[in-house]
Amino acid sequence: MKVKGKHYRTIWLKEHNPETVQIIDQTKLPHKFQILDLRTVDEMAAAIREMYLRGAGLIGAAAGYGIYLASLSAPGDPEAFEKAMTDAADLLIKTRPTAKNLEWAVNKQLHTIASEHSVEEKRRAALHTAVEIADFDAEACRQIGLHGMKLIEEIAQGKKGEPVNILTHCNAGWLAFVDYGSATAPIYAAHDRGIPIHVWVDETRPRNQGASLTAWELGEHGVPHTLIVDNTGGHLMQHGMVDLVIVGSDRTTVTGDVANKIGTYLKALAAKDNGIPFYAALPSSTFDWGITDGIREIPIEERDPREVKYIHGNLICPLGTPAKNYGFDVTPARLVTGLITERGICQPNRESILKIFPEKR
Amino acid sequence: MKVKGKHYRTIWLKEHNPETVQIIDQTKLPHKFQILDLRTVDEMAAAIREMYLRGAGLIGAAAGYGIYLASLSAPGDPEAFEKAMTDAADLLIKTRPTAKNLEWAVNKQLHTIASEHSVEEKRRAALHTAVEIADFDAEACRQIGLHGMKLIEEIAQGKKGEPVNILTHCNAGWLAFVDYGSATAPIYAAHDRGIPIHVWVDETRPRNQGASLTAWELGEHGVPHTLIVDNTGGHLMQHGMVDLVIVGSDRTTVTGDVANKIGTYLKALAAKDNGIPFYAALPSSTFDWGITDGIREIPIEERDPREVKYIHGNLICPLGTPAKNYGFDVTPARLVTGLITERGICQPNRESILKIFPEKR
Repeated sequence: MKVKGKHYRTIWLKEHNPETVQIIDQTKLPHKFQILDLRTVDEMAAAIREMYLRGAGLIGAAAGYGIYLASLSAPGDPEAFEKAMTDAADLLIKTRPTAKNLEWAVNKQLHTIASEHSVEEKRRAALHTAVEIADFDAEACRQIGLHGMKLIEEIAQGKKGEPVNILTHCNAGWLAFVDYGSATAPIYAAHDRGIPIHVWVDETRPRNQGASLTAWELGEHGVPHTLIVDNTGGHLMQHGMVDLVIVGSDRTTVTGDVANKIGTYLKALAAKDNGIPFYAALPSSTFDWGITDGIREIPIEERDPREVKYIHGNLICPLGTPAKNYGFDVTPARLVTGLITERGICQPNRESILKIFPEKR
Repeated sequence: MKVKGKHYRTIWLKEHNPETVQIIDQTKLPHKFQILDLRTVDEMAAAIREMYLRGAGLIGAAAGYGIYLASLSAPGDPEAFEKAMTDAADLLIKTRPTAKNLEWAVNKQLHTIASEHSVEEKRRAALHTAVEIADFDAEACRQIGLHGMKLIEEIAQGKKGEPVNILTHCNAGWLAFVDYGSATAPIYAAHDRGIPIHVWVDETRPRNQGASLTAWELGEHGVPHTLIVDNTGGHLMQHGMVDLVIVGSDRTTVTGDVANKIGTYLKALAAKDNGIPFYAALPSSTFDWGITDGIREIPIEERDPREVKYIHGNLICPLGTPAKNYGFDVTPARLVTGLITERGICQPNRESILKIFPEKR
């Protein structure tokens, strides 16, 4: 998407120097737009570990490029080359142990590389696969955008030129993927087509990804938006100031339960209470085909309480106050209007989901 | 309540020097416990205006003491004395234009003073009335505590020694009143009686009164508690970690709608969705007897967007990001299990409310 008027992805090969991978340093956002050069798998692993980049889709793409960088510096001797590849794979997988896409991308690379014969061919295959993984992520998000845009278009028809008000939570934006994002993809598609829209951005405590990332990317792309604290959505919905809620998903059950950033469930309740459509936008890679009860079965990450107690290094409570920091909550399918996937929109139930993903039957 | 083991109110006459009023400087909490001496009505007005003290009940008590301080320094000439009193009243009322209790307390003082003859008698009456206003506030909160404690006691009977988990939002604590608080009064009463309890404290963005005030006062009084971000309550309720929600109220309709700090409505929805009792605790002074539809009729204060964009002086979003800052929301009566008042607990409907406040029929 656009930054200062120019189109960017979150990760790409450096122009005139395809032996270097470039990324946006997300730790500097929103106050500084800085591009980092990564030349080795060690640098890529550090970038993932230290969260210079983050987000399910982007982590997968970064791992793919990481293996490619490792292949460049690996020895020409076939046996030593293979050892370098498995070392690189171990290194990358250890950076963020819970990220599903990371392991998937690394395994895809190892598999492709193993199927080639010469080291030169293996290197070419690694490059090709890295680009393919990134393109696949971007294309899935683009498709989510096209499907979701229709929902916005329909609402716009009833608004007589008034903007469609969309509320979103956390950052399921292009910064979390290679391009477009999941929850933001329909927003960008609608905006680029000239449909008048306005986005309410939840700040999303404790890490404030809404304030620092979503507000930044919407602003750079020129999408009208307003930042609010996480407490505000219900009041807005009671007063007709929200037409549609779109959030992302970190894990989706085959029965349509949606695990997403903590606080999503509260917004879904308010949407239901006020008759406002509530959609989760997600690439199908977030489906967990083996789970049917999200609230009981999806493990919820507990993070460091200091993320709650300190904001930008400032202690906001007494020093000795105990705090708890749950990263996600689960919105049950009964509160979800629909799921926007790369294959189209389906209802949050097994029948409807398997209809567009018949290979999972 | 207790601070470092000693009992305090939020406002009192200085020991051995009843011409000085003392308050806790709430702008320094939670990191510093500092007591301020106030000797003139100008100092009291500044303390209210600059929020060295805040909260509906406490503001009323402070205004009462402010008139008393004004009476001490007012000229002995009856006419000049009266002018000094009306000037003081104007000054105090202007400090926080929307605070209902402030005007009520000032008018009560003027009325009492006017009914006395000599300036000496007027001064004595002002002192007497100031103390009376503060005592009345503390006693109302104490009664709320006794009534609300019964709810906690009942739940405790089913928990076999496990603590009763209570969730609260914002600071409806003793720091907002003269003593005990409204939402916290049942909590302190239960704790002091030895009922095992644990309180989930919402941080309450944007001003974080939960983190800076509620966590502090519960900690000082020795009540077990845990700080959470505002997004967390729904997840806790889904997992059986909350037995009871108690919040305060800034304005309550005669039909039982409750206007309280922004975000209260979202917690009420989650409580309803999980079958958890949701109570508002309030002195009857918060009833607005003339309003029947809280969502349509209660005006919602919009505050400075900088409270959303900056935390402790740190900008958390891009500089140019627009933000909105609504101070309150309205929880409709259908989501409220009951109202805990100084006269007892009633259901959130006209019939039940007027049964314990028959003089308002």
